Amino acid sequence: MDVPLAAPQGSLTERLAGAMRQRIASRALLPGAKLPSIRALAASAQVSKSTVVEVYDRLAAEGVIHSRRGSGFYVAGHLPPLSVADVGPRLDRAVDPFWVSRQSLEAGEGALKPGCGWLPPSWLPEDILRRAMRALARADEGALVDYGTPLGLPALRQLLSRRLAERGVEAAPDQIMLTESGTQAIDLLCRMLIEPGDVVLVDDPCYFNFHALLRAHRARIVGIPFTPSGPDMDAFAEALAQHRPRLYVTNSGVHNPTGATLAPAVAHRLLRLAEQHDLVIVEDDIFADFEDEPAPRLAALDGLERVIQIGSFSKTLSASVRCGYVAIRRDWLERLLDLRIATAFSAPRLSTELVSRALQDGSYRRHVTALRERLHRARQRTAARLAAIGIRPWIEPRAGMFLWCRLPDGVDAADLARTALGQGVVLAPGNVFSLSQTAGQHMRINVAQCADPRIFEVLKQAMREAA
Amino acid sequence: MDVPLAAPQGSLTERLAGAMRQRIASRALLPGAKLPSIRALAASAQVSKSTVVEVYDRLAAEGVIHSRRGSGFYVAGHLPPLSVADVGPRLDRAVDPFWVSRQSLEAGEGALKPGCGWLPPSWLPEDILRRAMRALARADEGALVDYGTPLGLPALRQLLSRRLAERGVEAAPDQIMLTESGTQAIDLLCRMLIEPGDVVLVDDPCYFNFHALLRAHRARIVGIPFTPSGPDMDAFAEALAQHRPRLYVTNSGVHNPTGATLAPAVAHRLLRLAEQHDLVIVEDDIFADFEDEPAPRLAALDGLERVIQIGSFSKTLSASVRCGYVAIRRDWLERLLDLRIATAFSAPRLSTELVSRALQDGSYRRHVTALRERLHRARQRTAARLAAIGIRPWIEPRAGMFLWCRLPDGVDAADLARTALGQGVVLAPGNVFSLSQTAGQHMRINVAQCADPRIFEVLKQAMREAA
Repeated sequence: MDVPLAAPQGSLTERLAGAMRQRIASRALLPGAKLPSIRALAASAQVSKSTVVEVYDRLAAEGVIHSRRGSGFYVAGHLPPLSVADVGPRLDRAVDPFWVSRQSLEAGEGALKPGCGWLPPSWLPEDILRRAMRALARADEGALVDYGTPLGLPALRQLLSRRLAERGVEAAPDQIMLTESGTQAIDLLCRMLIEPGDVVLVDDPCYFNFHALLRAHRARIVGIPFTPSGPDMDAFAEALAQHRPRLYVTNSGVHNPTGATLAPAVAHRLLRLAEQHDLVIVEDDIFADFEDEPAPRLAALDGLERVIQIGSFSKTLSASVRCGYVAIRRDWLERLLDLRIATAFSAPRLSTELVSRALQDGSYRRHVTALRERLHRARQRTAARLAAIGIRPWIEPRAGMFLWCRLPDGVDAADLARTALGQGVVLAPGNVFSLSQTAGQHMRINVAQCADPRIFEVLKQAMREAA
Repeated sequence: MDVPLAAPQGSLTERLAGAMRQRIASRALLPGAKLPSIRALAASAQVSKSTVVEVYDRLAAEGVIHSRRGSGFYVAGHLPPLSVADVGPRLDRAVDPFWVSRQSLEAGEGALKPGCGWLPPSWLPEDILRRAMRALARADEGALVDYGTPLGLPALRQLLSRRLAERGVEAAPDQIMLTESGTQAIDLLCRMLIEPGDVVLVDDPCYFNFHALLRAHRARIVGIPFTPSGPDMDAFAEALAQHRPRLYVTNSGVHNPTGATLAPAVAHRLLRLAEQHDLVIVEDDIFADFEDEPAPRLAALDGLERVIQIGSFSKTLSASVRCGYVAIRRDWLERLLDLRIATAFSAPRLSTELVSRALQDGSYRRHVTALRERLHRARQRTAARLAAIGIRPWIEPRAGMFLWCRLPDGVDAADLARTALGQGVVLAPGNVFSLSQTAGQHMRINVAQCADPRIFEVLKQAMREAA
């Protein structure tokens, strides 16, 4: 029996029990299925029979399995509804990606959350939105009450087409589909591109929600170590040969969580390999407007042949107004539209009318220009404050709000996050971004959320306790 | 080899080729898989060998399969991306549910579309929305730019909780999750509740997008004949025993497409059976505000034990403002929240702020009261006009915008829809709603979209041609 023993921590019994729970929760073992005998599992998992006895006892006490006298052990019949957490490995709740999202989303506006993935409301252009809203209050009734067309508002798709062209991505308005968010865009693409069990490559570390999303699609996720110039190309080539992945999901503009940008040579080699192995790439470009000078984009180099680009306005305009997009080759678009109708019915309308109005004059461009400068200063200031307490960024990012930081030796980021939460500070410990769980000494810091000096006090004290 | 020959029309060759295409597209047959020999397929599908030769020739010409000399036929290696249409049976495009949705969504505002599923923009309360929009332009910055909390805006959940209580559904605000739409709500619930291959019951006929949505989840769909008082309870009991379904998805307020309402005795028996067979029910209640006097609700009778209710404001307030909700038992909500974060990240914010303001005073209640009366008159007027050309409603609905109509003998609804489309009229032929394809002589008419007398001229003439 093939029992994955992925989690590096915990006793042998705990690890084996966890692996069994996961196989049952993901229905790799179905309700009613007979489990291996104690002797057989001990042999295949290379543990003692007493360990297996302990594991089966524990699972039976939890109601996950039950024994039938003289016949062996069976998976229990009644399962609670599935969840992503069941489909993927259930991590310690303090380093669970959902925990970071939930804490960040639930924290009040005054909370300290250097771990969260967005700007404070005061950094976003409320005036632009109020003006757009007043303009929309005078719009035609269709804009206010009717469904959107399947691709979404033509005016906004035209505007996006021009903006993409500025970054070298040639996408005609009829190659662009508007969505509720960048996440919804990736979700629809997964529905179109992958089957349960397909292998998908991600960067290690990567945006933690990619793990959760791909698990919801029952993909097999393979991580590629990320370097300051992009994914490690030797590991990438090896993964292509070994796992035959269908899809690679990445941020290539400003990488989350590391802040790195893709080097041209890496981008070129990556696309050549993708072509050889018939790999499709989803390039998540939601941080594009943070860049002064665009780094290489896979979608631009590839001409949207096998790269699909997605984006949104959540990070630079408003997260309240849900609006994302997909730029994709024309012959794949019909299928995507059918899937959207099936799972969300129509394109968003009101939010796209609003974004279209917000982007109409030069105000948004002026806003992002000022934002880049403000982020630049915040990165410098935060890096200096972190250095003073022994925390150092992995690289100095050219753009964006994130610093991927290394903690002093002996400090575990998950422990630190737990302690800091007790002090009202939400952190993002490295392993929530790492499939291989090798970023236990790293942490993602959002420089725009670090204005309050209490954050550094709490970090300093928590590190002293954790060390 | 088990080749489903579902499509009742087309030559034997076409049907067999279609079935093979579907098995390949859905990856029941994987790329590289060897196909049965000509002799073996002829025997199992009970057709002649020459039919199989013709089928294999055709599929090879399409590039779907290829032959290797002396070795047989194989599934071709390169597949286009999956789509819902591939996962489910590909129907004739004129009676394809996606076609109805796409035609309805793409048609301009002046188009004649008695087949579409929503009210004309002029029937919706634009003044209420303009007022809400102006109020929102003055709101706190958080409402304009920040993410929503995981469950969604507390003020709107409180309001929904009170509205649900008026219909007998007891759901506290912390049992309500806001979504982008009713469709997104059902989609998330499917993600939580079903696995690929699980059986789901639907009404026959039912809202056609249920078929598309469930196919996107790779469910096995079983239809239950629908009667004027609800699903046929004997067929329901039989399906429970035979197929052991996990889920039943229905509209029980005003049924789409029939306009029927659930009889109390049927509701009661249905819930008893559901309990005996551990069936979960999703009750789609998006037409609730069309009713003067609420018909029995499964969610009310069951107390949200195994019934989950969803709703939205797309039909009575605005389809442009995307806002739906789920009312669900508390212990299932955590899992649903995790799934939402994984696949859409946050709850909608701006749209919910807007709906909350739109519902704040008595204007919306006055609007829906007037709307019900207007729909009542439109149902009577449209029924009379239809009767004059020989089209009769199956029942006289108590509420809503739909008449489920029977065409004169000899008139096929799909033929009629094709002919009418040539005249610029979008119809909804019965079989798009029917899993068993037994509604070929029925048609759903939206009375609110029937003000233009040309519709009846086109219908009359098209029926003459089709007969």
